[in-house]
Amino acid sequence: MAKYLNYPVDLLDKFCMEAFGKFGFTEAESRIITDVLMLSDLYGIESHGMQRLVRYHKGIEKGMIKVDAKPDIVFETPVSAVIDANEGMGQLVGHYAMKKAIEKAKKSGVGIVSVRNSNHFGIAGYYAKLACDEGLVGLACTNSEAIMVPTFGRMAMIGSNPIAISAPAEPYPFFFDAATCVVTRGKLEMYNKMDKPLPEGWALDKNGHDSTDASDVLKNIVAKNGGGIVPLGGSGEQLGSHKGYGWGMVCEMFSSIFSLGTTSDKCMQNNKGGICHGFMAIDPAIFGDPAAIREHLSGYLETLRNAPKADGQPRIYTHGEKEHFAMIDRMKNGIDVNENTVREMVDMAEYLKMDVEAYFGDFKAGENKMFSGNY
Amino acid sequence: MAKYLNYPVDLLDKFCMEAFGKFGFTEAESRIITDVLMLSDLYGIESHGMQRLVRYHKGIEKGMIKVDAKPDIVFETPVSAVIDANEGMGQLVGHYAMKKAIEKAKKSGVGIVSVRNSNHFGIAGYYAKLACDEGLVGLACTNSEAIMVPTFGRMAMIGSNPIAISAPAEPYPFFFDAATCVVTRGKLEMYNKMDKPLPEGWALDKNGHDSTDASDVLKNIVAKNGGGIVPLGGSGEQLGSHKGYGWGMVCEMFSSIFSLGTTSDKCMQNNKGGICHGFMAIDPAIFGDPAAIREHLSGYLETLRNAPKADGQPRIYTHGEKEHFAMIDRMKNGIDVNENTVREMVDMAEYLKMDVEAYFGDFKAGENKMFSGNY
Repeated sequence: MAKYLNYPVDLLDKFCMEAFGKFGFTEAESRIITDVLMLSDLYGIESHGMQRLVRYHKGIEKGMIKVDAKPDIVFETPVSAVIDANEGMGQLVGHYAMKKAIEKAKKSGVGIVSVRNSNHFGIAGYYAKLACDEGLVGLACTNSEAIMVPTFGRMAMIGSNPIAISAPAEPYPFFFDAATCVVTRGKLEMYNKMDKPLPEGWALDKNGHDSTDASDVLKNIVAKNGGGIVPLGGSGEQLGSHKGYGWGMVCEMFSSIFSLGTTSDKCMQNNKGGICHGFMAIDPAIFGDPAAIREHLSGYLETLRNAPKADGQPRIYTHGEKEHFAMIDRMKNGIDVNENTVREMVDMAEYLKMDVEAYFGDFKAGENKMFSGNY
Repeated sequence: MAKYLNYPVDLLDKFCMEAFGKFGFTEAESRIITDVLMLSDLYGIESHGMQRLVRYHKGIEKGMIKVDAKPDIVFETPVSAVIDANEGMGQLVGHYAMKKAIEKAKKSGVGIVSVRNSNHFGIAGYYAKLACDEGLVGLACTNSEAIMVPTFGRMAMIGSNPIAISAPAEPYPFFFDAATCVVTRGKLEMYNKMDKPLPEGWALDKNGHDSTDASDVLKNIVAKNGGGIVPLGGSGEQLGSHKGYGWGMVCEMFSSIFSLGTTSDKCMQNNKGGICHGFMAIDPAIFGDPAAIREHLSGYLETLRNAPKADGQPRIYTHGEKEHFAMIDRMKNGIDVNENTVREMVDMAEYLKMDVEAYFGDFKAGENKMFSGNY
């Protein structure tokens, strides 16, 4: 089993801010990128926090992610926009595009923005939350390198294609953020780092048979040998594989199709990300009194939490509840980071000629002095 | 095993038209209701075609469905409307609401309509298709009597909550219509009529344990004893139960939450349906050239169909393909109807004092003369 190291939130935040600054992003840009990554770890979504830094590091190093790129609006109406990210950092165009959707929703009631030629943007939920924080219903989705095998196929042809939806509610918002395949690639990466076999029903080998070998599945995906992750609902129709596959296609519609961008099957080829995103903001005021709608939703969520539990289950969660409590816990107790992820962070810090010891102590020598107060 | 009887499409169409006329609907209204039911059987979605007639019959008989009800628009903006169905027939307000969404999308780019106080409206896909037939992207969803057990629960608290999305494409549209629980209640009703045990992983008994007893599960749902159908993704988090549950909540948002209507847990009580629907139409022209978008989608769908197949699988389907070919087949070869469903249709015809023999021959005596040309 891999070891986890605990770091205070502000240390990781400061580390990201400095690292992205060294990559050439402005302070405002670094703030956005860091916020997206930190929110993921704070929400307990380990796969998309510090764990993902290595991909941004490598993406920038190889020139797939263009640090200086600025997004262009290529088409616009009062309720919509299509944005070309010009191969920039996904978080930056994602933030820009959702802010645009929010602005349109505030004026016109609805805003839908589709983005092409971008890169990995972190958790979709961050962007849905931006809308929710302003009292709107937010939706965000993204395609990705092909990782989902369509029902009855043996090649990954669709991204993990998460869709996130968030809506204001008390005592915490509705926050639903989920890959449309059964699990994310990040989860496979975590199992790989932990040297654990995958649970059954997650992945297929290159011939389309069930596989629990995370390392093999990940290698085959990168090499485009075949295999990948099954849709939500599994590999056959009996448990609804075609439904997860369908939701993956809906994600594709709002991201790559509306923007005339690169579909997942062609993303991440020839050193081009080509990733596409979709955003929607809806002002609940277009249906009446937003406070009444919020109260109605809050009441239903509470009813669900209070519903009778299955034998042996202490509670029923509503979406966003786990994230809410994870954040409270991590703000107080810090964030546990896999030591393999720390190693990647140390490599990145060395590449950027940062003061590694100030953040991680003498990590490479096996010592852990990161709580020396020296940061 | 239950027997299936084959009927020509125009016989079933004529039967529905006459029956709904006898219930008191105008010819135009009967046309809409019949079209929704026929499309379901033509698309091979047996659970929502003739199989569902008995529920409309009983709903009208008991006064839960008000034949004379007319919908009221209770709130409206250029991109939205909230409609009160006043306990009318779901198909009628559904058609009216989606037409309203389409009209708004044509003017404003997007139309979102939320409906409350309605009844069962048939397949959600019919309404999504209405938008698609006019070159738009259509979305339709509905809540229902609680049938989905939330993750870690043992009581059905959420409807089957299907969401359908359709978009123009060649050679046939993208048409995705799926319950957010693993299967529909209609599927359980079919297994019950066929006297077959349910596949594993579909349903829970009243204590929250796995059950394959369709009759028991259905009885418990009606009596609100506990149990029900699991979300897409099963009953545990490992295969994504929380994701199906989340999609069910998204359906609830667009139907019962935005309309301030009845949430699924309170639908179908005290002889009130209370069912709520949600509709969205998006004009692809708000993202650029609709023809280019259609071509881009069509190309991706074709790529998916042509992708490498899993061992032993002859083909990969895209959403709407099966329905397209089912319709061609049934238009030519007629529709197979379960004999238990035919019995319900005969009962309904007798209740309405229709000429039963003209449609079904001497069905009750075990003879099947329905192809006598006497209809």
